[in-house]
Amino acid sequence: MARVSQEHLDARRRQILDGAASCFARNGFHASSMQDVLKEADLSAGAVYRYFRGKDELIAAIVTEVLDTVRGILEQAARESPPPTPDVLVPRALGRMREQRPATLEGGEWMFPRLMIQVWTETTRNPELAVVLADGYGKVRAAMERVVENYKDAGLMSADADTDAVARAMIALVQGFAAQMALFGGLSEQTLGDGLRALVAMRGATAGA
Amino acid sequence: MARVSQEHLDARRRQILDGAASCFARNGFHASSMQDVLKEADLSAGAVYRYFRGKDELIAAIVTEVLDTVRGILEQAARESPPPTPDVLVPRALGRMREQRPATLEGGEWMFPRLMIQVWTETTRNPELAVVLADGYGKVRAAMERVVENYKDAGLMSADADTDAVARAMIALVQGFAAQMALFGGLSEQTLGDGLRALVAMRGATAGA
Repeated sequence: MARVSQEHLDARRRQILDGAASCFARNGFHASSMQDVLKEADLSAGAVYRYFRGKDELIAAIVTEVLDTVRGILEQAARESPPPTPDVLVPRALGRMREQRPATLEGGEWMFPRLMIQVWTETTRNPELAVVLADGYGKVRAAMERVVENYKDAGLMSADADTDAVARAMIALVQGFAAQMALFGGLSEQTLGDGLRALVAMRGATAGA
Repeated sequence: MARVSQEHLDARRRQILDGAASCFARNGFHASSMQDVLKEADLSAGAVYRYFRGKDELIAAIVTEVLDTVRGILEQAARESPPPTPDVLVPRALGRMREQRPATLEGGEWMFPRLMIQVWTETTRNPELAVVLADGYGKVRAAMERVVENYKDAGLMSADADTDAVARAMIALVQGFAAQMALFGGLSEQTLGDGLRALVAMRGATAGA
């Protein structure tokens, strides 16, 4: 039997995760069966179960991968000088997520935000997934905090600012806008950038900060 | 038979909605039965079905009421001069929601954010609920846009800013922070205020805005 290359294994894993993500985003995590995932990924049960034992492992892998992607975007941003301002960085993060999950596009709509809000709901009832999410978010928050520290070092933000609170607010913007994309559609991340640019440019609003 | 006062009817309706909200937040919308809601509200089936025919009507009523509350907070803010800045208004909106839904407190945790993310997920699969949510959000957005116009009139924000985009970004902050509350707990709206205050006070970040 020919040895299977790592490249082939990775491509197969990618195919499975993309199929699962599309399936869960469209029909819901609970309403999707492993059979639906196999059909969506166009693979046999043997091919899929070699990688993932079931839906819980699939959703955990999807969450881990996406949060790793976001963390990578933020770590890269933390190496840029001057650091990208929030109105640039926050829509960039959403844009890169869109690029990385093209398989979840359907009829022109980016379906990944629908998967995000489903994962959040599932997390409140699934302790194992809650651990995966908390771990991944912890790393995303740490990376965002390094960007915020760079804002301070570059003189863009008061040294007194609460780094953790700023990082959480920036992450909230991504999460909340993704929720609006999922709920109402027809939104591009550029809209978020436009709104955020006006917010960070407000004048005289915060003499005490 | 004695006539039942409007006050009594309203109190009973309140009792049902609070029981349903707690039940859905804790156990999930799909995992909760009408029996669970009756038990949580400590009422008979006859008393509840007089007001609501089932879970779908309950969740629609909860969504409508909460979005009405948020709209009311924003309409009041739009009458203030000078208008409350985002770092004041956004945590205020979350704080008022918490005050209005005290019945969903349990073990010190505010459970309402968990209900919010469940409603979002449910909305992607329930067209009637999607209509209720889109209608309520449309009104919230319109009220937020009036606040943003006031920022412009007061000279706090560039007249060129995209009003709709700014309103969406501010709403995204509430939504995203609520998601973090639901997922990770242990967060107060004051943290969001602190983060947002530092963001709107950023210097030199947005020469083009």
